Amino acid sequence: MTLVPLARLMVEPLVRAALLEDLGGAGDLTTDAIVPAGLAARTAMVAREAGVVAGLDLAKLAFALIDPNIAMQVEIDDGATVPTGGVIARVNGPAREILTAERTALNFLGHLSGIATATASIVAAVRGTKAKIVCTRKTTPGLRAVEKYAVRAGGGANHRFGLYDAILIKDNHIAIAGGIAEALRRARAAAGHLVKIEVEIDNLDQLAEALGEGADAVLLDNMSVETLAKAVAIVDGRATTEASGRVTPKSAPALAATGVDLISVGWLTHSAPVLDIGLDFED
Amino acid sequence: MTLVPLARLMVEPLVRAALLEDLGGAGDLTTDAIVPAGLAARTAMVAREAGVVAGLDLAKLAFALIDPNIAMQVEIDDGATVPTGGVIARVNGPAREILTAERTALNFLGHLSGIATATASIVAAVRGTKAKIVCTRKTTPGLRAVEKYAVRAGGGANHRFGLYDAILIKDNHIAIAGGIAEALRRARAAAGHLVKIEVEIDNLDQLAEALGEGADAVLLDNMSVETLAKAVAIVDGRATTEASGRVTPKSAPALAATGVDLISVGWLTHSAPVLDIGLDFED
Amino acid sequence: MTLVPLARLMVEPLVRAALLEDLGGAGDLTTDAIVPAGLAARTAMVAREAGVVAGLDLAKLAFALIDPNIAMQVEIDDGATVPTGGVIARVNGPAREILTAERTALNFLGHLSGIATATASIVAAVRGTKAKIVCTRKTTPGLRAVEKYAVRAGGGANHRFGLYDAILIKDNHIAIAGGIAEALRRARAAAGHLVKIEVEIDNLDQLAEALGEGADAVLLDNMSVETLAKAVAIVDGRATTEASGRVTPKSAPALAATGVDLISVGWLTHSAPVLDIGLDFED
Amino acid sequence: MTLVPLARLMVEPLVRAALLEDLGGAGDLTTDAIVPAGLAARTAMVAREAGVVAGLDLAKLAFALIDPNIAMQVEIDDGATVPTGGVIARVNGPAREILTAERTALNFLGHLSGIATATASIVAAVRGTKAKIVCTRKTTPGLRAVEKYAVRAGGGANHRFGLYDAILIKDNHIAIAGGIAEALRRARAAAGHLVKIEVEIDNLDQLAEALGEGADAVLLDNMSVETLAKAVAIVDGRATTEASGRVTPKSAPALAATGVDLISVGWLTHSAPVLDIGLDFED
Amino acid sequence: MTLVPLARLMVEPLVRAALLEDLGGAGDLTTDAIVPAGLAARTAMVAREAGVVAGLDLAKLAFALIDPNIAMQVEIDDGATVPTGGVIARVNGPAREILTAERTALNFLGHLSGIATATASIVAAVRGTKAKIVCTRKTTPGLRAVEKYAVRAGGGANHRFGLYDAILIKDNHIAIAGGIAEALRRARAAAGHLVKIEVEIDNLDQLAEALGEGADAVLLDNMSVETLAKAVAIVDGRATTEASGRVTPKSAPALAATGVDLISVGWLTHSAPVLDIGLDFED
Amino acid sequence: MTLVPLARLMVEPLVRAALLEDLGGAGDLTTDAIVPAGLAARTAMVAREAGVVAGLDLAKLAFALIDPNIAMQVEIDDGATVPTGGVIARVNGPAREILTAERTALNFLGHLSGIATATASIVAAVRGTKAKIVCTRKTTPGLRAVEKYAVRAGGGANHRFGLYDAILIKDNHIAIAGGIAEALRRARAAAGHLVKIEVEIDNLDQLAEALGEGADAVLLDNMSVETLAKAVAIVDGRATTEASGRVTPKSAPALAATGVDLISVGWLTHSAPVLDIGLDFED
Repeated sequence: MTLVPLARLMVEPLVRAALLEDLGGAGDLTTDAIVPAGLAARTAMVAREAGVVAGLDLAKLAFALIDPNIAMQVEIDDGATVPTGGVIARVNGPAREILTAERTALNFLGHLSGIATATASIVAAVRGTKAKIVCTRKTTPGLRAVEKYAVRAGGGANHRFGLYDAILIKDNHIAIAGGIAEALRRARAAAGHLVKIEVEIDNLDQLAEALGEGADAVLLDNMSVETLAKAVAIVDGRATTEASGRVTPKSAPALAATGVDLISVGWLTHSAPVLDIGLDFED
Repeated sequence: MTLVPLARLMVEPLVRAALLEDLGGAGDLTTDAIVPAGLAARTAMVAREAGVVAGLDLAKLAFALIDPNIAMQVEIDDGATVPTGGVIARVNGPAREILTAERTALNFLGHLSGIATATASIVAAVRGTKAKIVCTRKTTPGLRAVEKYAVRAGGGANHRFGLYDAILIKDNHIAIAGGIAEALRRARAAAGHLVKIEVEIDNLDQLAEALGEGADAVLLDNMSVETLAKAVAIVDGRATTEASGRVTPKSAPALAATGVDLISVGWLTHSAPVLDIGLDFED
Repeated sequence: MTLVPLARLMVEPLVRAALLEDLGGAGDLTTDAIVPAGLAARTAMVAREAGVVAGLDLAKLAFALIDPNIAMQVEIDDGATVPTGGVIARVNGPAREILTAERTALNFLGHLSGIATATASIVAAVRGTKAKIVCTRKTTPGLRAVEKYAVRAGGGANHRFGLYDAILIKDNHIAIAGGIAEALRRARAAAGHLVKIEVEIDNLDQLAEALGEGADAVLLDNMSVETLAKAVAIVDGRATTEASGRVTPKSAPALAATGVDLISVGWLTHSAPVLDIGLDFED
Repeated sequence: MTLVPLARLMVEPLVRAALLEDLGGAGDLTTDAIVPAGLAARTAMVAREAGVVAGLDLAKLAFALIDPNIAMQVEIDDGATVPTGGVIARVNGPAREILTAERTALNFLGHLSGIATATASIVAAVRGTKAKIVCTRKTTPGLRAVEKYAVRAGGGANHRFGLYDAILIKDNHIAIAGGIAEALRRARAAAGHLVKIEVEIDNLDQLAEALGEGADAVLLDNMSVETLAKAVAIVDGRATTEASGRVTPKSAPALAATGVDLISVGWLTHSAPVLDIGLDFED
Repeated sequence: MTLVPLARLMVEPLVRAALLEDLGGAGDLTTDAIVPAGLAARTAMVAREAGVVAGLDLAKLAFALIDPNIAMQVEIDDGATVPTGGVIARVNGPAREILTAERTALNFLGHLSGIATATASIVAAVRGTKAKIVCTRKTTPGLRAVEKYAVRAGGGANHRFGLYDAILIKDNHIAIAGGIAEALRRARAAAGHLVKIEVEIDNLDQLAEALGEGADAVLLDNMSVETLAKAVAIVDGRATTEASGRVTPKSAPALAATGVDLISVGWLTHSAPVLDIGLDFED
Repeated sequence: MTLVPLARLMVEPLVRAALLEDLGGAGDLTTDAIVPAGLAARTAMVAREAGVVAGLDLAKLAFALIDPNIAMQVEIDDGATVPTGGVIARVNGPAREILTAERTALNFLGHLSGIATATASIVAAVRGTKAKIVCTRKTTPGLRAVEKYAVRAGGGANHRFGLYDAILIKDNHIAIAGGIAEALRRARAAAGHLVKIEVEIDNLDQLAEALGEGADAVLLDNMSVETLAKAVAIVDGRATTEASGRVTPKSAPALAATGVDLISVGWLTHSAPVLDIGLDFED
């Protein structure tokens, strides 16, 4: 699998802000006091637990923005699995600057690898089915683009990126419009020709209505496995089917077995725990 | 308990960036297509699970930046506990603009309430002891100030905010300096008179050395409960004692029972799951 | 027709930058020297030629950012037609501040109304056909979102907003992939479920290939009216059809008569002349 | 002719914003899906019509900000004329990144070359007279500095850059002051010693008044050729004379023949059509 | 005397940055710990020494950005003299927020009032002569616009604001051009019609050359009073004359007595001491 | 002495803003008109008076941001003393770009070297005592971090950097709390374990109260030398002692002779005159 690297243009403001948040006006008081300028160090970013790596570009940028003389050599690429104790990358250069950038680099790498690892675990749970695992707009404010990248690194796919790139009609929209058919008609009339329309469905009556109006995709929300299976059968390929509702690695296989196209999991981006990664100095 | 509100000046750039991240250049395609301009709505932010609230200022700002005519009336303050189904705030105003701001407001509120709730659960676990629960610098990049606020809302306390406001001598610093005593001497020589110095301790020999050099605080890292108890006894009030190392609500009480002053928990800010909060339209 | 107002959040940085570009460090030397503080003025924004208005929110914001005491009363809304000499809005308040903001307000309003007017003229030329007029990504750098809004104000529709919200396979992509079918297969494999795919077609052979792979839309580029008509007939509703290639109000009706769904016009956003609007002081 | 290159410092924010406007959070969906990483390409920026080039620094920066490995070799400098089909520059490097930056690079280059070309056409129309062609403050919001550069590239000169670098007394200022003489006296009293003063003149009576007060320049607005000639004769070198009012290449020669020093043309920056430039892949 | 207020648009970023510089991520630890929320206070900004006030808009904005409920009532306007102990403004509102904004408000007000006071002292020293006191480009980085405003508040005038609004030919330019005449010719050829040209003169020979080429102004640098008087006599009104070179209130009168038009003083903006102003709480 | 270099990340926005403030939209009119492109120059930054150097990183960055081809070779490091006429650094490269960046580079270097020199003069005055010279929060808005760096370069030490990194209880806080003891109790209860607490003391009664509550440091404000000596004796090492109140090089020795630990001097950062440094072109 090849991952498209994140454009430096897009992530540099994030990394810069994170470093400045840690440096304040006084900088790294501890390191500046204790570590002599110019002292060279050889270090390794090591996984304290197994998982899928994501975010190396951001970690590399954190070091480079503090000092372009820090060389970071990647050993395990974004999207690949690191075992417990595995060396993800070697970071060599001036000890002082490495120590100053360390926490910011690790905060990005741990957070995004955590998302990739969580994604991979659900992806693995539905392997053999046609179901893709997708994320949602329930992301950490300011980090959506990189979190959606981490989901891809973990083998998942992305739902829409924001309010602006697709139409997703939810229950409140339907209530205001007075029904699914009317909501879909309004959406169709306003949508550009490259904008797809998905509609949230709570029951099988609504499903018929949505299919009748030609929805591109239906979000089958919080349905039992049985109802979901029925819904997928009714759709019969006329629209993309998406299941959602507090999905876990445990519940995912049964959902996937219904033949649903997509399973969306908000948990990937709003609640996945960090992957524990440390920086070890070598002798 | 009274929480000091977050300065609008500090959080406005975060909220603004999060909204723009969701709006892109085209705005809310769905809502603009379906919801008539000027339609009024009465809505409530409701907890889908019990927890401690944090981040209301950011949610309020998300609505206000989209439309100052949206009125958000807080029912349960930051730092207070909301039961499952409890109404945290009422949000009234134009339906279109409420729907557009909804996800950003909830993403902030859910993330920060998740941190507050996780903090409160560990704080509760050590109630009756003198131990305070503190967070670390393992925070989500860009969100440190508000995440540390959420820790306070959950009843915890804050460790240093960055590299710039205190000295924390870690293992790598000690190795480079050639020992704890030398590291502490260098730190003391460079530190301003209002800068405290803490040093990471791995064993009781190091502890004696640190106390001999007058460290203000000692970070007792990854010690067994027995060793920790011994260390606290040795310190005997001469320095602040802090225990750390993958602390959980389960392991915290035994640590706290040693009489340690502080227990630091990285998990609060890097891995706490979101508190599930939704926005319900009322009839 | 109701236009969704531009989110202040999205346009404020543009207006702020434009005002600062005009103010420099010294401000409005002329007005500050000549016009007494506090002098009140009643002025009107008057069209020197007929056209369609767009950009009132930006003009209003230009005045408000200089002085919130300037009141701008809109007489002719965005999307409506103003005759030569017609009053678009009345701007009352302190004379000094009105004069300082005048040029920035008019630059936005004239530029966007020029786009709306150009759009309306082509829309009128194809009235009675099913063809929609759409814009392209050939926009003025930094102003895409507001220019696309102006196109909507003129009765046109928007193509994709950027590289990020839809797939448009062009000749260079096809050449690199080794053919339309392979390019479409790669695109389909990578695309999210809400991402549509359009492909540029230069001849009828390519068209068959694209339809065979299920393209959502085909961009029929620089075809003669005859070929275009054949292409539309071949497609027969299986994909959205878009005609492009130096379209003018003169050439548009014949293109539209072929039954094509969309006619895209780069000229709307990259070359439409300004609508001449002035600010008149009233006695 | 040597053009002073635009300071990278000044234009980088514009180019960066334009690229991000096109990339959004998801990046270039099409290219990332279809074009293999690392594939090399040789391309040329080719003029589809003849004109004067301007903006190469911005195009180069667009490529460099996406990937510093893209090499852009200029063949025809800013300020020089390119024939139809002429190669302006060669752009070699990774195909994927070239394609991603292409539209932004071309949008800048086409827009600024359009302004330079329009300028050159009016400059040519008045060749042999002493009249210089100058631009106005009617520029595209946010792009004034680069548009004024493009005017210079086309052989024109710049009027003031903003409200801050010279005094230009217009009809509304005169009306508020109660006359040209009083307006000029107020301006003179406030102006720094390096600030010149120009005043807008509608008739020959006003002209006498302005000369009596020692205006540095007079803006002879919307006068007939006959009146303009009289005005220039009356001024007789005592002030710089500037003609304005919907000047076109057709009307310019007669204006220039009056001996006026400057002819200002708002059209250059607010309505010049783009110069059509494309990017061709070479085999 | 009426001072044009500083545009909020121009100074808000400066005030915002200064406040954030003081607040960091943790805010005002002292005040938040000690001062109860909602406690009201009545305070006064009091001059600890006599001087000329400048910068009230920035101080007011500092309070307003922290809390719009803080009311600042100005007693002594910018440009007016405050005696020792005089109340410049009253600041009433929530005690906590006033204390948090206090230092930033005073830092701006003290710095700018210091410049105004220094200016006023030299202006007073040359009263009765025609000499105006002007500032230079030797300003504090980032604060030029407001420092030049403070010079005006002190009764001085402004030299050019930057490299962009006038031509000032200095010794290095002359050396590179090979002489004053050639430098002036190059400058004249390139200058827009509203751009004045000043040239630095070290001796009387250069002066003749400059006048011969029609310089608008001559900067008579570091001349003795006698030479300066001769130079002014030679110029005899044909150009603006400016004296410079480590001018002090003591040396200024003799310079002014030569009849020179302007005396420029870098010290006003790069070395004027702060005016001591405090904030007193009232009972 | 080794000074920790300023992180480029922290100072680049300051240098960038200062350059843009000088360049405006039109750039360096004078140099662009007169100096040929590509002309090479060898120049030296020379001290016109003796002092301590500070700010070389910022000067270097000013040149580099205008043109990375400018090479700046430091001869006298930050923190070292330069004699009158001494060469601080050699700056070689394109003449045009050097001239354009010159003033910004010198404004930073002169301002910060002025602070370092002022600091060094007071540090020298108290040599032989244990007193350290420290700065305050009375800094130039926006420049605090670099000004505090300059104080260190001059041999001084830093007080707290802002409201966020230590607690300093002042008279108004004490009045609101109802006394020193209560203020200290509130501060202690809220302070993190790495936050020190200092309290302002006006008389010896207050001092006893502060020591009784265990203040980490006492700010002995505006005391006579006799009272100060008594206070220092009373404290007897139980807290850090700081003297303040319009300290000058003249008054400092007597204060230092009392045995006080710190002498804080606001004048260093709010009123130190610039160190006069020029840029000389060499033949």
